[in-house]
Amino acid sequence: MGLYRVILAYDGTDFAGWQAQAGDARTVQGALEQALRRLGGGERVPVAGAGRTDAGVHALGQVASFDLPRAIAPDDLAKALNALLPDDVRVLSCATASPSFHPRKSAVSKLYRYLLDTGPVRLPQRRRSAGYVRWRLDAARVEAAAAAYVGRHDFASLASSGGSVKTTVRTVTRSEAVFEGPTLVYEVEADGFLRKMVRSLVGGLVAAGRGAWEVEDLRRALERADRSAWPPPAEACGLTLVRVDYPAAVLE
Amino acid sequence: MGLYRVILAYDGTDFAGWQAQAGDARTVQGALEQALRRLGGGERVPVAGAGRTDAGVHALGQVASFDLPRAIAPDDLAKALNALLPDDVRVLSCATASPSFHPRKSAVSKLYRYLLDTGPVRLPQRRRSAGYVRWRLDAARVEAAAAAYVGRHDFASLASSGGSVKTTVRTVTRSEAVFEGPTLVYEVEADGFLRKMVRSLVGGLVAAGRGAWEVEDLRRALERADRSAWPPPAEACGLTLVRVDYPAAVLE
Repeated sequence: MGLYRVILAYDGTDFAGWQAQAGDARTVQGALEQALRRLGGGERVPVAGAGRTDAGVHALGQVASFDLPRAIAPDDLAKALNALLPDDVRVLSCATASPSFHPRKSAVSKLYRYLLDTGPVRLPQRRRSAGYVRWRLDAARVEAAAAAYVGRHDFASLASSGGSVKTTVRTVTRSEAVFEGPTLVYEVEADGFLRKMVRSLVGGLVAAGRGAWEVEDLRRALERADRSAWPPPAEACGLTLVRVDYPAAVLE
Repeated sequence: MGLYRVILAYDGTDFAGWQAQAGDARTVQGALEQALRRLGGGERVPVAGAGRTDAGVHALGQVASFDLPRAIAPDDLAKALNALLPDDVRVLSCATASPSFHPRKSAVSKLYRYLLDTGPVRLPQRRRSAGYVRWRLDAARVEAAAAAYVGRHDFASLASSGGSVKTTVRTVTRSEAVFEGPTLVYEVEADGFLRKMVRSLVGGLVAAGRGAWEVEDLRRALERADRSAWPPPAEACGLTLVRVDYPAAVLE
């Protein structure tokens, strides 16, 4: 009895994203709700999530919560869910949560990681877990572009159209690009993200790195907050929701 | 006109191994032969490979060769093959080969890597690329077992039954196990490998690491060359053929 929170990992390749949809689209939220329904003997258990990851986007630290009508030890709940979930989604940990906890509303920051392979041939082993561009990217330009994202900005120019958010202002607290061989590893942390925002940020890194855009022009496009002027977003498959952070008080 | 050799990478998950089979099993050799057939306008081009990787086993450096009736620039051939191959196998490079070159017979050594995740939950992201055991493994015991494999041994106790090899003696020149967090990374290099040999070697590491076998008992089982006494092999999905080495002279 009471609220539970779980940390989830999933391979997003074969999911139509996090959010449950009308019809028979396979979603992570849907898979978790189905497992909970079977666990509870048929009763519907609505699940809330921290981030609505898109189709093909992965997670190592998605956070979800749900109310159960009867009490169950968190470790037993994690094991029972893993026995019922498909093998591309796993409960990494489970805990009880205070009634005020909400995985999205209580979150203070999120960390995403994007892997982008570059080079002449796309490695088969990485086609589900890393984006890919053929171009060689200039590391210094990529790093400079990543640094330009840090701070409080109106990210309207990167927002997917049709969103219904109240504000497109977000504060990026970390934005770091490093190359490991031919692979760009990009990590970005912010108090919140707009839909497709990380993939658009990566699109900007690619444009700067291949010389199609000057870093200064990216900066100006960001300032103008103009939806029409931004390089195209990177593929979904390279993106992972790594971690969601909460104030210690709400985790008690 | 003449012999070509290619280095191949593949994600073995959805292949029934390297070797072309009767029936409609999807194999890497079959995929390459089909691409060559389309390239050559319908003529069958037999392909030889360096290692007959099993179903589910991956490659970063498989080597294959074939004869073409007409000359084509190696770089163009690589591009043309990649345009015809399915996206879980790629030609990484292509070169002409001397008539005496044979990918398996000319090879002097091969390097395999095995990834084994350990811990309470199997990460969905790694289920195609790493084996998994729930047990915590003792690093010192795993390292000691790996070291015991080095040298010239009769590996009959690790050989898959039903093989038709002339000798089961092989020389292991490198056998190193390191832990990266909860992941065991095992690399083994030898002048040749028996069928399922690497997976059986990893099975031995697991048995030693979890305390089911003493390293000394593994050593003795190896010496006895008795097929009936060896821990079970690790899963195919963790194994990758990383590299095949040749004498410089045959690559000229």
